[in-house]
Amino acid sequence: MTVCKTRAELRKIVEEAKKNGKSIGLVPTMGALHEGHGSLIAAARPENDLVIVSIFVNPTQFAPNEDLDAYPRTLDTDVALAESLGADIIFAPTAKEMYPSCDDTWVEVTGNITKVLCGKSRPTHFRGVTTVVTKLFLIACPDRAYFGQKDAQQVHIIRRMVKDLFFPLELRILPIIREHDGLAKSSRNVYLSPEERKAALVLSQSLSAAEEAVRGGERSGARLVDSVRAQIACEPMSNIEYVELHTLPDLTPVTEPLNGAYLLAVAVRFGTTRLIDNTVLEVF
Amino acid sequence: MTVCKTRAELRKIVEEAKKNGKSIGLVPTMGALHEGHGSLIAAARPENDLVIVSIFVNPTQFAPNEDLDAYPRTLDTDVALAESLGADIIFAPTAKEMYPSCDDTWVEVTGNITKVLCGKSRPTHFRGVTTVVTKLFLIACPDRAYFGQKDAQQVHIIRRMVKDLFFPLELRILPIIREHDGLAKSSRNVYLSPEERKAALVLSQSLSAAEEAVRGGERSGARLVDSVRAQIACEPMSNIEYVELHTLPDLTPVTEPLNGAYLLAVAVRFGTTRLIDNTVLEVF
Repeated sequence: MTVCKTRAELRKIVEEAKKNGKSIGLVPTMGALHEGHGSLIAAARPENDLVIVSIFVNPTQFAPNEDLDAYPRTLDTDVALAESLGADIIFAPTAKEMYPSCDDTWVEVTGNITKVLCGKSRPTHFRGVTTVVTKLFLIACPDRAYFGQKDAQQVHIIRRMVKDLFFPLELRILPIIREHDGLAKSSRNVYLSPEERKAALVLSQSLSAAEEAVRGGERSGARLVDSVRAQIACEPMSNIEYVELHTLPDLTPVTEPLNGAYLLAVAVRFGTTRLIDNTVLEVF
Repeated sequence: MTVCKTRAELRKIVEEAKKNGKSIGLVPTMGALHEGHGSLIAAARPENDLVIVSIFVNPTQFAPNEDLDAYPRTLDTDVALAESLGADIIFAPTAKEMYPSCDDTWVEVTGNITKVLCGKSRPTHFRGVTTVVTKLFLIACPDRAYFGQKDAQQVHIIRRMVKDLFFPLELRILPIIREHDGLAKSSRNVYLSPEERKAALVLSQSLSAAEEAVRGGERSGARLVDSVRAQIACEPMSNIEYVELHTLPDLTPVTEPLNGAYLLAVAVRFGTTRLIDNTVLEVF
């Protein structure tokens, strides 16, 4: 496997691959790879001639008060995991390599989709995401790009960007991978103390309860949100940032009674660690 | 020659060309083609296997009070001119084809470069330009894209965007084409009455005088700007929007005495018609 640190190295490989008619799959990550990322790499392997995994902790999607410096960096084990799953190339640039200038060009999706959920507390986050993903798309020229449903809002924003700007590629979205007890895999789970780790189970449990309620006939979005919020609030270590329900794919407000596909998403702090989780409710 | 009205038609041609290793040159225009555009097409012809001329009056770069509806549309003569200069493909999409959604994704260059000159009176103009140029780049996947130095600020903003986002293409910038008497060719020149047309000569004359002053040893940016402004103001039909001097390529403020490359640019109204012109001063 090849580890590229510069755009120039990767471009050389990409241009050679394109010239030879090879297809390219890109798995953009911030490293600290876990089985969630692994499922993306594993999905990309049989669908593409060349599988590129990018590892870049993107500074522009962190606000000054967020965990940019503390974010786990584990390049050696990341490279080993990516290789074991069949990745061909790791692209691990420096911040200077991805943002060589001070003034910069931004790619920004506007509208409700970037204002709700994480957009409320992280107003510049998604602008950072769409900008760096554009850069990665233009360097790697993938035929297919792989993202996890764990970051559901990010997925729908990137889908919107790809559609609006006409990126000539296919997005492949893979399901959330969970621990045996239901906790969604996340690079930030390492921050949790044993007690917080246990308390955090309330997220997947409350979302499962909402799925069960819909299967049982519940058609009120307001009642679903209230019961998820109440269940999480019962856990003393939790500190709720949001519990929200939105229509898919544009994350617009829900009208009652429910009828269609919805994103039910939560962001909750346990100690200093902010976790997100979500489920798609199909109500017909 | 083929005229494509849809992205799908053009994509089919582009993908076929890429598969066969053919190079692509893109000349983005708003139509109403004149010899300025002609020089771009003529430059693209020998450098590329496939020459695509896009003709799209981009609504997002016009403010509500500007001349979007009045902007000259001359598709039949445009097609004939492009064909005579060897273009292979005209891409002439509708607004709905380029902006199928309401909420949208914007590509925006920030910093001084978009705030000075035309950025002051047209605050959303360049965001519209960079967004539509991104869309055109992603549809046409050019190896080379051709722009005219007439729109100098646009050129430097697009250059910045290409550099910041890592578009894998080469920008080719061609000189201003002028009428025999010096007036810069522009699609908006057709708006001018005979008297305004004559008065507008003061633009190229004042810029030439500034070039001459630099050749004569002038090293004061402030004096150069003042004398251009004074010369244009002497023309009773002129209404100056700006006369500005900025460093190249980032359009930052000038420090005295001049030493380097500078953009001297003017925007002046004659009646209801707004004209721009510029020259690059190399002061060493």
